[in-house]
Amino acid sequence: MASSVDPVPLMQVALQYARHGEGHVEPNPMVGAVVATADGAIISIGYHQQFGDAHAELNAIQAAGLDTLGNDLYVTLEPCCHFGKTPPCVDAVIQAGFRRVFVGCQDPAPHVAGQGIERLRAAGLQVTVGVCESQSRRLIAPFEMLMLQRRPWIHAKWAMTLDGRIASRTGHSKWISSDASRAVVHQLRGRMDAVITGAGTVRCDDPLLTARPRGARIPLRVVIDADGSSLHADTKLVKSLSQGAVLVCVADHISGKQIERLKSLEVEVLPCAVTKLGRIDLHAVMAELGRRDCTNVLTEAGSEILGSLFDSSLIDEVHIFIAPRLTGGSSALGPLGGLGRDSIPKIPNVQHLRHTSIGDDLLIEADIRRG
Amino acid sequence: MASSVDPVPLMQVALQYARHGEGHVEPNPMVGAVVATADGAIISIGYHQQFGDAHAELNAIQAAGLDTLGNDLYVTLEPCCHFGKTPPCVDAVIQAGFRRVFVGCQDPAPHVAGQGIERLRAAGLQVTVGVCESQSRRLIAPFEMLMLQRRPWIHAKWAMTLDGRIASRTGHSKWISSDASRAVVHQLRGRMDAVITGAGTVRCDDPLLTARPRGARIPLRVVIDADGSSLHADTKLVKSLSQGAVLVCVADHISGKQIERLKSLEVEVLPCAVTKLGRIDLHAVMAELGRRDCTNVLTEAGSEILGSLFDSSLIDEVHIFIAPRLTGGSSALGPLGGLGRDSIPKIPNVQHLRHTSIGDDLLIEADIRRG
Repeated sequence: MASSVDPVPLMQVALQYARHGEGHVEPNPMVGAVVATADGAIISIGYHQQFGDAHAELNAIQAAGLDTLGNDLYVTLEPCCHFGKTPPCVDAVIQAGFRRVFVGCQDPAPHVAGQGIERLRAAGLQVTVGVCESQSRRLIAPFEMLMLQRRPWIHAKWAMTLDGRIASRTGHSKWISSDASRAVVHQLRGRMDAVITGAGTVRCDDPLLTARPRGARIPLRVVIDADGSSLHADTKLVKSLSQGAVLVCVADHISGKQIERLKSLEVEVLPCAVTKLGRIDLHAVMAELGRRDCTNVLTEAGSEILGSLFDSSLIDEVHIFIAPRLTGGSSALGPLGGLGRDSIPKIPNVQHLRHTSIGDDLLIEADIRRG
Repeated sequence: MASSVDPVPLMQVALQYARHGEGHVEPNPMVGAVVATADGAIISIGYHQQFGDAHAELNAIQAAGLDTLGNDLYVTLEPCCHFGKTPPCVDAVIQAGFRRVFVGCQDPAPHVAGQGIERLRAAGLQVTVGVCESQSRRLIAPFEMLMLQRRPWIHAKWAMTLDGRIASRTGHSKWISSDASRAVVHQLRGRMDAVITGAGTVRCDDPLLTARPRGARIPLRVVIDADGSSLHADTKLVKSLSQGAVLVCVADHISGKQIERLKSLEVEVLPCAVTKLGRIDLHAVMAELGRRDCTNVLTEAGSEILGSLFDSSLIDEVHIFIAPRLTGGSSALGPLGGLGRDSIPKIPNVQHLRHTSIGDDLLIEADIRRG
């Protein structure tokens, strides 16, 4: 007898728990799973908690004990069908004797891509794919980016005044973000694989770029610095190497002497191709971070680097802190320098907009829409 | 026997009703009043509904009938003690036989300024001044500005992208605000005494600047146009004179011929002093609008005029529509041109920040803090 239970609320629970893995599971995707009766009563919940540990389905199945037989499984991502750090989840799902499986979205990884679902169907399970599909897909967007484009999901953060400036006309940027907003930035850093800045910011602000307090991961600190001149023995990034590595991306034509100087500071040096304008090719930087399995990276930089990233379609998500201040001035810098678009996009080029009050500041977050 | 009733919730009711007069009562202040028992039970509510009509206290007293004797009056603004369009309210308050009067704030008008309160006390009433004082004071801020500074309360409206641009690098500004946001702008215009724009906006956008649908008042449409060349017989502002007058503020040195040309279009011409930079002195424009009893004016203009207003401390309140779009580009204009401040203000220079979702746009409104 078919039950008419609505799968959406149960998948929402799975999605909610999946998010608890954020910062802990990467480069794996976040996944959540719920075991429920045909009537929709929840028996157990599981999620992927830590890279290398059991997958979500396994955790939910183990928590259910013998209560899986004839019941339903809700899982935000197609169960895997290959041996990785753990045995294939499809086998466990089949052995558990579920009657039905509801899947949020298909796994975009080429070595899965629907094969897990096929295996379940071949074993006689009734499988529904695409429950809360857009949310399930968004949940794994950084994973999908890394898997298919071989580059990280790129976050851009900036703090601006109500008139859209990241500094006054004299370059003064203090007081733009409040203590409360800075605490949110530290939380963000704490789930990143890398935090990227530019030589200008290093010279002006001498930032640490660490997450304080520490988060789930220690981000690699990356400096985009074509001529390799911004770092010195007394730069905070250099003095704090025990708190996290530093990678300097320099133009591939700089002198061996400069490279040796940087290496003597114990920072890693990455010679990169340069663009026609003499700037570091940011695609090359991101490809390298992708090779290192960086899933999420955060850019905290000035107008020039943020603008170049935007011009290169290398921003996936923005975190914009708006301070209750006005500075004015036609020469005060906005957040995105570079060339910019010819026109205002008719169809919004951001989506999934959300806003949050952080003390007196406003945090606006959104994803950049492709195409 | 003294009652321990909390006057705040009753004053909040008076404040809420007072706001119903917005757009209708100016150049009078908005005022609300509540008649209540010593225990705080509301007997009647009144507010100033329309310029020239009865004041709030009178409306509340009339609605209470004989139920004022021995009861309490809550009024957001000190009752008047002079003959204006209506007889002094203090007389009516005294005659009504109230025991206590709670006043939101003293009337800043020099011909009242505490004398109304004194008259009530002299008549034996127990008067408490300053209940919800900051809200009561904010309610009459435009009135106070006109009364004490002899200029209107100046609203600035702009629509910008998430990266703080009012146009793309090519000057394209279409799609920045949505239909829903434009509807809110029309509502705003409909309670203004004047809507101000610049010659550049007239040339680029050929705006009507009328409120559609009509609001409580028909705003004077003001164009800041130093050389007086922006208006022609086929300009929408000129073609729509039946829907509202147009005032062109020109430099006082322009040719008589140009002035004659403008007058022949049936627009009013105001020759104004110019600054050292050859721009219209915006203080002079606002002083003239003050002489005309304009209480609220809205500026919908480009970077240059908005920046000049900001530099001249001639913005009192901002209405910022943020569209879910990014344009980028170091040459794309921000909302406030002009010189700007040297530094980001340590103490926020806006206050009373509020934000509202308007469809996909975000509306941020705030008052500019003085000093």
